[in-house]
Amino acid sequence: MTDHIYWKDGVLYVLDQRELPFKKTYVRCKGLIDTAKAIENMTVRGAPLIGIVAGYGVALGVKEAVETKGQCSMADLDRVCHRLQKTRPTAVNLAWAIERMKATYRSYANNSDIADVMTEEAISIHVEDIENNRMLSLYGAELIDDGDTILTHCNAGALATGGYGTALGVVRAAHESGKEIKVLATETRPYLQGARLTVWELSQEGIPVELIPDNHVGLLSANKGFSKVIVGADRIALNGDTANKIGTYMISLCARQFHIPFYIAAPVSTFDRYIGKGTHIPIEERDGKEVKYLQGKLLTVKNVKARYYSFDVTPARLITSFITEKGIIEPPFKKYIKMLFL
Amino acid sequence: MTDHIYWKDGVLYVLDQRELPFKKTYVRCKGLIDTAKAIENMTVRGAPLIGIVAGYGVALGVKEAVETKGQCSMADLDRVCHRLQKTRPTAVNLAWAIERMKATYRSYANNSDIADVMTEEAISIHVEDIENNRMLSLYGAELIDDGDTILTHCNAGALATGGYGTALGVVRAAHESGKEIKVLATETRPYLQGARLTVWELSQEGIPVELIPDNHVGLLSANKGFSKVIVGADRIALNGDTANKIGTYMISLCARQFHIPFYIAAPVSTFDRYIGKGTHIPIEERDGKEVKYLQGKLLTVKNVKARYYSFDVTPARLITSFITEKGIIEPPFKKYIKMLFL
Repeated sequence: MTDHIYWKDGVLYVLDQRELPFKKTYVRCKGLIDTAKAIENMTVRGAPLIGIVAGYGVALGVKEAVETKGQCSMADLDRVCHRLQKTRPTAVNLAWAIERMKATYRSYANNSDIADVMTEEAISIHVEDIENNRMLSLYGAELIDDGDTILTHCNAGALATGGYGTALGVVRAAHESGKEIKVLATETRPYLQGARLTVWELSQEGIPVELIPDNHVGLLSANKGFSKVIVGADRIALNGDTANKIGTYMISLCARQFHIPFYIAAPVSTFDRYIGKGTHIPIEERDGKEVKYLQGKLLTVKNVKARYYSFDVTPARLITSFITEKGIIEPPFKKYIKMLFL
Repeated sequence: MTDHIYWKDGVLYVLDQRELPFKKTYVRCKGLIDTAKAIENMTVRGAPLIGIVAGYGVALGVKEAVETKGQCSMADLDRVCHRLQKTRPTAVNLAWAIERMKATYRSYANNSDIADVMTEEAISIHVEDIENNRMLSLYGAELIDDGDTILTHCNAGALATGGYGTALGVVRAAHESGKEIKVLATETRPYLQGARLTVWELSQEGIPVELIPDNHVGLLSANKGFSKVIVGADRIALNGDTANKIGTYMISLCARQFHIPFYIAAPVSTFDRYIGKGTHIPIEERDGKEVKYLQGKLLTVKNVKARYYSFDVTPARLITSFITEKGIIEPPFKKYIKMLFL
């Protein structure tokens, strides 16, 4: 599944993930602002996909500058990147993609076709992400046994990436290799990425999936309701501490309690070489209204305050291994994560 | 707050908790079947309240038998009790109240006013529950410090009991004693008892409360977002293992991780002298539709299977103490819980 984001005739089309699985609507991003808003308002989500859309956003911003002023100066580029950088704080792929686009600009700033060069680079980020997902999924599939029930949280599927997916990529690859597996998907309150996106992706491909509320993981870990956990990541510190969708940390505690392997599937672009440990990862706080209202319906007393943190940090000691396109990373994480950047 | 259940002119009136906080509608229970259905369809919920409604249900069943046949035989009583017993499996207060009503019947079976005697006994169960809640709340309030933020899960308030509440009774008593406290309420998917009931009860009394999704407890325990946990219980085994609303177990793991006290507030009627440990407590599984639909709206792919277990079991080792009307119970639980029945 790769049709949720495509580039055609200078326009980026992204599937509106807020409407899934009920409607399949595409949002046209014709310029920088469209892409920034698509990230901010969660038309697109998922760390790798946010990075890809930001890459296209930089390309569109450079093109706009060239079209308006005949060129794109360093100051123009900084303004473009700053606008995209402030859309969401936690996923490091955003900063990573912007940095890569900046490096390309620096190499080709004086070329007359700089706008085209930037577009090509954005497309490369997109294509490489899909390739990396396929590769990490092949590594990950080796960890899956016939008969496994795999718990996943949020959506780390094709929809969260350029295509194919990270955690769900591993599930796909294991399924494609003929292993009989089943997925338990947490609904992932308040945005319901599990209920709306993960269940939809897997149902479409005939991979068996069952939905549970987030608070069921404790009971099901005690009852042998699942045999492995695989989730994605939004940012991984050098010591292995991992920011992922809120609730992941609680799942990791349950897994550890019952010696259930807990895997993080993520491309190298999700590792942050500039952050030593999880406590330094910024955690996004969103509007409490997203907790109080669901599909426009009020769920509680109108004037009560609600809190919505989008992510939490799972400490490295609760993680069994990382699944990346460069292979499986096992402890000591600090030593091996550093080697990813060599 | 005690107006959510009252007995008037031979009819039991119960506030329909499915409609709260949006509508305040009362359901009239004129006979056995009405009370059984009110328990089954969750018009009423909460272990102590289920016990109270079952007590009234037995009284109404006996009255119906007397009115129809001139008397209520042992076989009639058994039929009445059997109907009520099968409404919900986990809360032990149901069995406890039925057993108490049976004992009353055995003592007064031959009295011509047996129907009135049974009604009086049901009223006693109700009144004593409120008294017990007030007493356990006074004991519990001693454990609360000025400035505490108390996390609670589900609703163990007046609405879950005859009145005043268990976990929220402790909060009420601490608040009434002048301590400045704040409550963090989990929304408690899928039935949203926290969002709909706990937030409503506390807001009405001006006790500060904030709402969070269930999956936020991990992050907030790591961030010192709360200083104590108090929840209710549906059944407590002799060794202290405690069945409570699904999700409680995960909360207890987070609390232990950060040395946050984790209290169970429950009347003695919630302790089950016939069950040695938690693995023997029956866990109710409800229809997965209650997860897939919210207020009539579909949240996921229509044909996917969803699972909904109503309760989980928190092992005794993760519980700091029990708060009961007979005082605070500290480890070794096994020794002290047995003494409750002396």
